[in-house]
Amino acid sequence: MHREVAIIGIGLSEWGELWEKSLRDTYVEAALKAIDDAGIDRIDSMYVGCMSGGLFNDQEHLASLLSDYLGIAPVPAVRVESACASGGLALKMGIIEIMSGNADVILVGGVEKMTDVSGDQATAALASAADTDYEFHHGITFPGLYAMMARLHMERYGTTREQLAEVAVKNHFHGSMNPLAQYPSQITREMVMNSVMIADPLRIFDCSPITDGAAALVICPLDMAKKISKHPIVKIRGFGHATGPIALHGRTEMCALPAVTKAAEKAYQMADIKPDQLDLVEVHDCFTIAEICVLEAIGLVEKGKGGEATVSGMTRLGGKIPVNTSGGLKSKGHPVGATGVAQAIEIVTQLRGKAGKRQVEKARIGMTQNMGGSGGSSIVHIMEVL
Amino acid sequence: MHREVAIIGIGLSEWGELWEKSLRDTYVEAALKAIDDAGIDRIDSMYVGCMSGGLFNDQEHLASLLSDYLGIAPVPAVRVESACASGGLALKMGIIEIMSGNADVILVGGVEKMTDVSGDQATAALASAADTDYEFHHGITFPGLYAMMARLHMERYGTTREQLAEVAVKNHFHGSMNPLAQYPSQITREMVMNSVMIADPLRIFDCSPITDGAAALVICPLDMAKKISKHPIVKIRGFGHATGPIALHGRTEMCALPAVTKAAEKAYQMADIKPDQLDLVEVHDCFTIAEICVLEAIGLVEKGKGGEATVSGMTRLGGKIPVNTSGGLKSKGHPVGATGVAQAIEIVTQLRGKAGKRQVEKARIGMTQNMGGSGGSSIVHIMEVL
Repeated sequence: MHREVAIIGIGLSEWGELWEKSLRDTYVEAALKAIDDAGIDRIDSMYVGCMSGGLFNDQEHLASLLSDYLGIAPVPAVRVESACASGGLALKMGIIEIMSGNADVILVGGVEKMTDVSGDQATAALASAADTDYEFHHGITFPGLYAMMARLHMERYGTTREQLAEVAVKNHFHGSMNPLAQYPSQITREMVMNSVMIADPLRIFDCSPITDGAAALVICPLDMAKKISKHPIVKIRGFGHATGPIALHGRTEMCALPAVTKAAEKAYQMADIKPDQLDLVEVHDCFTIAEICVLEAIGLVEKGKGGEATVSGMTRLGGKIPVNTSGGLKSKGHPVGATGVAQAIEIVTQLRGKAGKRQVEKARIGMTQNMGGSGGSSIVHIMEVL
Repeated sequence: MHREVAIIGIGLSEWGELWEKSLRDTYVEAALKAIDDAGIDRIDSMYVGCMSGGLFNDQEHLASLLSDYLGIAPVPAVRVESACASGGLALKMGIIEIMSGNADVILVGGVEKMTDVSGDQATAALASAADTDYEFHHGITFPGLYAMMARLHMERYGTTREQLAEVAVKNHFHGSMNPLAQYPSQITREMVMNSVMIADPLRIFDCSPITDGAAALVICPLDMAKKISKHPIVKIRGFGHATGPIALHGRTEMCALPAVTKAAEKAYQMADIKPDQLDLVEVHDCFTIAEICVLEAIGLVEKGKGGEATVSGMTRLGGKIPVNTSGGLKSKGHPVGATGVAQAIEIVTQLRGKAGKRQVEKARIGMTQNMGGSGGSSIVHIMEVL
């Protein structure tokens, strides 16, 4: 990277079922916190990730709306969309604009207001991240897609129902130490395995929730951060972004995530590190099986070993490589467009040493992995504290 | 711009009511034409502008879908949205990524498949480009918003019903020479003024149509273009992007377009030219009144003089500054996400000297002005042939 980038401000809105707040309120809350945290009074450019303002809120033209209501118009504002990876994409685009020299101080955000529609409507809106013509319009929604991936993973690699449950147990354990988590309660393996069936073998506690929420970052050139940052400086050491077959039927192996593997490879290459140099990772656990497949796709464990690794405690706080110390999408919540940005906030919080009870000791290098749909796109960022 | 950018390939799909084609078919058709026109076999990165795959097609995660169906995955692909300015935004983001050095050969596209829903649904989908909570959900749609702007412009500046009609007459005259226009028929002032009323004072011939279509460009660094281009080289000389109040009630003057003015000023500054150095312009004539307001906002005429200038012939082929030689949104069609890219295609075609009967003589510098909603965002590009 010929012009390095640092994250100097972070802000998370309240997350949950926010009946009293609108899409714009939620975004502005996170953005103002990030601006305040950065201690700056200047924004040159803005990116916001949102999956579907159209289907959830009848609202497109989002970047114009949000720059206007934040009070920063005429600042150029760009809405990006890559389904549930929209937040990670917003961060990538902010980094690229700083690299281009076209802007210095950039507000990167993500938002989704998902409870303004019924649960059925939300499920349908989310299904638009799949291949609509060949998947969604034939009746399948995301729990069904991930259930098929889980079934195949169980048959092919011997992954067990207990191993799936352990992902949820671990992430709720982490989330119990995150005051901002939507569902901070601890759960047991038995609770997961006796919870209501959604799409066999996935039960309700295998699924991330529906969440309203926003997240925001302020980023700037590393040289500028060294002069103005109020916090330990977290720089972007690498990033990767890739697409892959959007539909499950387009993949050589249905439970593999080629876009995730490619994005991670590119990020490792740019950062010039190997997976075992990471101190912690936030991954896209929209379903328990997703975390298992991602651990394998980003090279933390061998193919087929994600379930075993989870049960071994390797990915738990105190283990070799803590995964989803924030609680992950499962416990922290999953306002889809905000998730990728919130993942970065958890890494920055940890690298600043401000994660409280869930602090990873001596955390120096962290990674985020954000994913669209059933893996049709993925964006990975590697960050390091100076 | 420290790394200059050139457009080396252009491609337009069929435009119209394409009942036999899907969103992905339409995009792939334009993209393959642009790649073929550029004569390259490499794409490093892809941007696609689309306003609402969600509301028109139940399809988000568009960049993943389209890179997959074009056959270029794992290439990173980004969907951007700024309502009807989504196409112009895709071009801006492609330019920024080339400036950043992160990619060299970039496919920039725009697409909208608008006829998969009813006319009422399409009108509602388009209304999501306004401020949903304060405009759309109170019942107003785009013809109504622009009708209010027209009424005020008539009262404040003496703009007449005849002057509005003349915009449509001119653009259909231009469109009659564009074999790709959706409505290439010439119309008269009387036909416009006797056509069915939509929102007083705007009649059906004051409104751009509902269109299915896609458009694509291949861009690369100018140095590379000089080595590989098969065509006269068209470089980006400047660009500007700005946001403004999304809702009409947020503006100091309801028929002014502050985001357009700001975007144009930035583009003129980067290009280091004045408006009178332009040889032709494509502007966002979603309604006849829009073209009049834009002529004023980009500094081609004084405030309030847009109607008069149109009747004088200044903006007609052969006039001082031909505007919308393609036929504009009015005659060529307006697949909203594709429009900004298609505007650039018209300018490139003219600057290459390949515009046939509608060729502007000695065209050397051209500009595109793309606009979201009722002017909440705008993106302007200035191009020059070497």
